[in-house]
Amino acid sequence: MSNTNARRRAALAGSPALTDVDAVIVTDLNNVRYLTGFTGSNGAALVWVAEPADPDHTSPDPTSPDPTSPDLTSTDPTSTDRISTDGRYLTQVAEQSADMRAIIARDCPSALLRFVADREPGARVAIEGHVVTVAAYEGLTELSSELGVQLVPVVDAVERLRVAKDSNEVELITSACALGDAALADLIARGAISPGRTERQVARDLEWAMFALGADAVAFETIVAAGAWSAVPHHRPTDAVLAAGDLVKIDFGAVVGGYHSDMTRTFVLGEPAAWQVEIYDIVAAAQQAGRDALAVGAELAAIDGAARTVIADAGYGEYYVHGLGHGVGLQIHEAPGIGAAASGTLPDGATVTVEPGIYLPGRGGVRIEDTLVVTDGGATSLTTTSRSLTVL
Amino acid sequence: MSNTNARRRAALAGSPALTDVDAVIVTDLNNVRYLTGFTGSNGAALVWVAEPADPDHTSPDPTSPDPTSPDLTSTDPTSTDRISTDGRYLTQVAEQSADMRAIIARDCPSALLRFVADREPGARVAIEGHVVTVAAYEGLTELSSELGVQLVPVVDAVERLRVAKDSNEVELITSACALGDAALADLIARGAISPGRTERQVARDLEWAMFALGADAVAFETIVAAGAWSAVPHHRPTDAVLAAGDLVKIDFGAVVGGYHSDMTRTFVLGEPAAWQVEIYDIVAAAQQAGRDALAVGAELAAIDGAARTVIADAGYGEYYVHGLGHGVGLQIHEAPGIGAAASGTLPDGATVTVEPGIYLPGRGGVRIEDTLVVTDGGATSLTTTSRSLTVL
Repeated sequence: MSNTNARRRAALAGSPALTDVDAVIVTDLNNVRYLTGFTGSNGAALVWVAEPADPDHTSPDPTSPDPTSPDLTSTDPTSTDRISTDGRYLTQVAEQSADMRAIIARDCPSALLRFVADREPGARVAIEGHVVTVAAYEGLTELSSELGVQLVPVVDAVERLRVAKDSNEVELITSACALGDAALADLIARGAISPGRTERQVARDLEWAMFALGADAVAFETIVAAGAWSAVPHHRPTDAVLAAGDLVKIDFGAVVGGYHSDMTRTFVLGEPAAWQVEIYDIVAAAQQAGRDALAVGAELAAIDGAARTVIADAGYGEYYVHGLGHGVGLQIHEAPGIGAAASGTLPDGATVTVEPGIYLPGRGGVRIEDTLVVTDGGATSLTTTSRSLTVL
Repeated sequence: MSNTNARRRAALAGSPALTDVDAVIVTDLNNVRYLTGFTGSNGAALVWVAEPADPDHTSPDPTSPDPTSPDLTSTDPTSTDRISTDGRYLTQVAEQSADMRAIIARDCPSALLRFVADREPGARVAIEGHVVTVAAYEGLTELSSELGVQLVPVVDAVERLRVAKDSNEVELITSACALGDAALADLIARGAISPGRTERQVARDLEWAMFALGADAVAFETIVAAGAWSAVPHHRPTDAVLAAGDLVKIDFGAVVGGYHSDMTRTFVLGEPAAWQVEIYDIVAAAQQAGRDALAVGAELAAIDGAARTVIADAGYGEYYVHGLGHGVGLQIHEAPGIGAAASGTLPDGATVTVEPGIYLPGRGGVRIEDTLVVTDGGATSLTTTSRSLTVL
């Protein structure tokens, strides 16, 4: 992982968002993990955009209050990038960020700011404006005045890099998707999705199956929505009992190595009614159209439109009340959003969901969702459970 | 719940932190839930500190772009407080925040700001400076200039109210604690904490037991730390195998109705060694001293000191490396922090943990933790599993 992380830091240093700063301090924990491998609950990363004026500075590090934890051994001792975390994570950071030196402090952003000021007097330092709170920014601004450096809020610099996944990330998302597929197959094989069971029981069974298969965590609280509840897009499972004739919508995912999967399937318990078949077929056609529209360089709004048109043309446009999909990675929802108002295009390596739905209030709803990876060759679905209307 | 929520909003309106503003827009989702009952993933609440100049304003609401969702029915139609969320939560917000009118919008803080400007031109509007990011604040500041209102960052106004729990909250925390006790008792009865099993297996069993007993979620990733690992305060469970003679430290909790429990017990597998008994007894005495120090009006630092002194006097001060406890409620860690450097006192109704520990690197550690509620009559432990050294 360490080469991967160093490559990501180099990509960040070259980001167009950072052309007018000397360094960036990253505090979003997913971004810290992405750039350094560190997964603790308190940490920040410093990435230099240009080599600091005084890279070989050899005086004792003034920012390391704990004498047992000077800069840790680095495989690239010339790098001036730093990871910062507190004393609880001394061992963990040395393992996870073995190629970086660590600065041990409780207030990581302040410690990194001091380090920058020491190496590059007068530096312009980017911080993540979409992460740092107004109150924290106030404190950092005061400190930067004292230190004679300048803070510059930037937005989404790391998130933009994270849209295009590298092979390491695609592998983990693929594993998470395969694990989700296997867990759902297990429930189906065991007859666990059947009349008489509650939404909550089915949700718990599915989550337990994911853990049993080795998931680190569930990607989000599993949605199991039966009968009329399936018309609620984000229903939380209740003690509602599954009944014959119900549509049962299941939206769930697993986490493997920090990376998420996301899939929705809608089943029917017993012979489907004509209206159920009708909306299922429309959603399936819309989902296929959305998947077909995925390509490197495709406009996000056009992808949404490709699926939305199918549902609108069938007369159900008003019952499809959300966007088509979103990026999936270290977060279950991340850039890019795929919706009617989205701007931008898909890069090579994007991993996104395609999840149209039709929700008929008081009756029921259908959503079909896959997680796909977009490459030069087109889009490949990483979730592989059958999309045909399945009678349980 | 609706009377409870209205009472909480009234308390916020009377908060000393808000004396110089006309209204506050709350965006932290736990705070939104606390004030309105709404549990969706996108939402904000508007609470008026003083009645707006134009409360009976009856023109169509300019902030409600969705024609199917005007202000929803309110049981108190004169209230000008508002909840805002997006269209996905139309049904849910009507149920959960039945006593409030809802403004349906994607950008909830902006929609609420427009509403304020409409009802009270020139208003001073507080936002949560510890929640709103620099980038979001920039956007809101621009909008407030256009609207002729003024933004004022305030910090922890709702969090300070949340320290003193109301009966509704204490009931839910009590349920969560009882559920945790029952789950641990189940594992002990089944012999699930025994030599040959892995930390991860025990952790998963405990989490599954909580779900089976009706937990909404686990409060945090369960800590099971065996043998030398028990000396790591926040060890994540691994495939390390429990062995005879091990100390086994288990720190876990359940979530019921959004409220958390938190408990740690340390067991020994087979006959305890003298050093294990020694540190166990010291930690137990320190924990008792900490619990005894809990009282309405007690200084937080003095509570920490009461427990810390016991460990220091026994010669183990350097092996107790964290604070004594923290508030528990909608979050697993919330105000007040009980530590040596804490300022402030405990209010009536505070729910806090008391969790001293001794951690001997390479050998093992002991922590004993309860969740307690503080009332005029003293402190009552809501977690009730035996605190005596238990041999498994």
